Amino acid sequence: MSTAVILVSGGLDSCVTAAIAARTHELAFLHLNYQQRTQERELRAFNALADHFDVSQRLVVDVGFMQQIGGSSLVDSALPIPTVEESGVPSTYVPFRNANLLGIGVAWAEVLNADAVFIGAHQEESAYPDCRREFIEAYNQMVDTGTRPETHLRISAPLIALDKAGIIKEGLQLQAPFNLTWSCYKSEDMACGRCASCRMRLGGFAAHHIQDPIPYQREA
Amino acid sequence: MSTAVILVSGGLDSCVTAAIAARTHELAFLHLNYQQRTQERELRAFNALADHFDVSQRLVVDVGFMQQIGGSSLVDSALPIPTVEESGVPSTYVPFRNANLLGIGVAWAEVLNADAVFIGAHQEESAYPDCRREFIEAYNQMVDTGTRPETHLRISAPLIALDKAGIIKEGLQLQAPFNLTWSCYKSEDMACGRCASCRMRLGGFAAHHIQDPIPYQREA
Repeated sequence: MSTAVILVSGGLDSCVTAAIAARTHELAFLHLNYQQRTQERELRAFNALADHFDVSQRLVVDVGFMQQIGGSSLVDSALPIPTVEESGVPSTYVPFRNANLLGIGVAWAEVLNADAVFIGAHQEESAYPDCRREFIEAYNQMVDTGTRPETHLRISAPLIALDKAGIIKEGLQLQAPFNLTWSCYKSEDMACGRCASCRMRLGGFAAHHIQDPIPYQREA
Repeated sequence: MSTAVILVSGGLDSCVTAAIAARTHELAFLHLNYQQRTQERELRAFNALADHFDVSQRLVVDVGFMQQIGGSSLVDSALPIPTVEESGVPSTYVPFRNANLLGIGVAWAEVLNADAVFIGAHQEESAYPDCRREFIEAYNQMVDTGTRPETHLRISAPLIALDKAGIIKEGLQLQAPFNLTWSCYKSEDMACGRCASCRMRLGGFAAHHIQDPIPYQREA
């Protein structure tokens, strides 16, 4: 099997993405610390998922520049994390985040001679400009022109057309270990249940009338 | 004047690029440390150039992931720096380097509300896949799709069609401060005069029958 680099935040989307990629590829897991509020909890989830999928090639890199650059409530503690829906691009948008994460993934993939980089982006988050299909397509064009001639690798975003309920359905079919994941933007012990990320996740489980296996501070 | 982010390594190309951008933009200088061999010397050149161009917005970021990922003689001290021409992509190629540098530049530009990111890439180095015009064009497409709808910024590579002699000619016309720059891949006090980067630079000055103002270990 050829190798694929999987961008693994430790959340539900990257868990299902890894389960999909595992059917066709040997997995190499890449995690980025960008001094987000829940950095330690996410790293713990990353390693638990890597253990589950028996992944030996793991790379954790610090991308502190995202905090130096700022501009997002996820990395700037002076900005509040929203709990109500925002119009336009949300304050949690980290400028050009997916482009930067994919760039690191492609560099590592080129060294590993991998043929794919998987990312769990999906259009339900399309208020984020870098979570849309057209962004992934444009990124692939750019990768073709910017890597060695002998490098042939594709960005794969298998969840791109799904909503959270669809992602959970896919994960249930693949027996993805939801219990090992972490999604909350605010809290590291019990998920807050109120931030935008918790709300989307809880809404996805509710659509299937099943219980989210991770602990919450209060029932949503 | 609108703002432009300039990728400034401290070398000759970024010096001339800054001189070009200064005619139309307020400058914001971005420098990346990737634990390359001559990191300290390059940072000194970066700050000297920023002083010369009277730039107050300076951002220096560590991109240690390039060394973690490896795959290039520029960041892996186990690999020798070549002094003779190599066929194909040179060993000094850092995987997907320009894509990663531009990604950080675009993120900062989006926060600064800048309308351009300038890079000194040029096709003479086209053995590097990410120094070609088609790469810059594909990158621009990707930026359009991956940033906020209200963000309108372009990657500008004004040296793309020039060779080293053409870049030096352009710099002479703009009175670019060549004496403040550093290009050598190997040495931090006197340039080695033998590495691929020194050779290209010396060849460019020789084409104009003028002396390179920086000190060399030996006459080339």
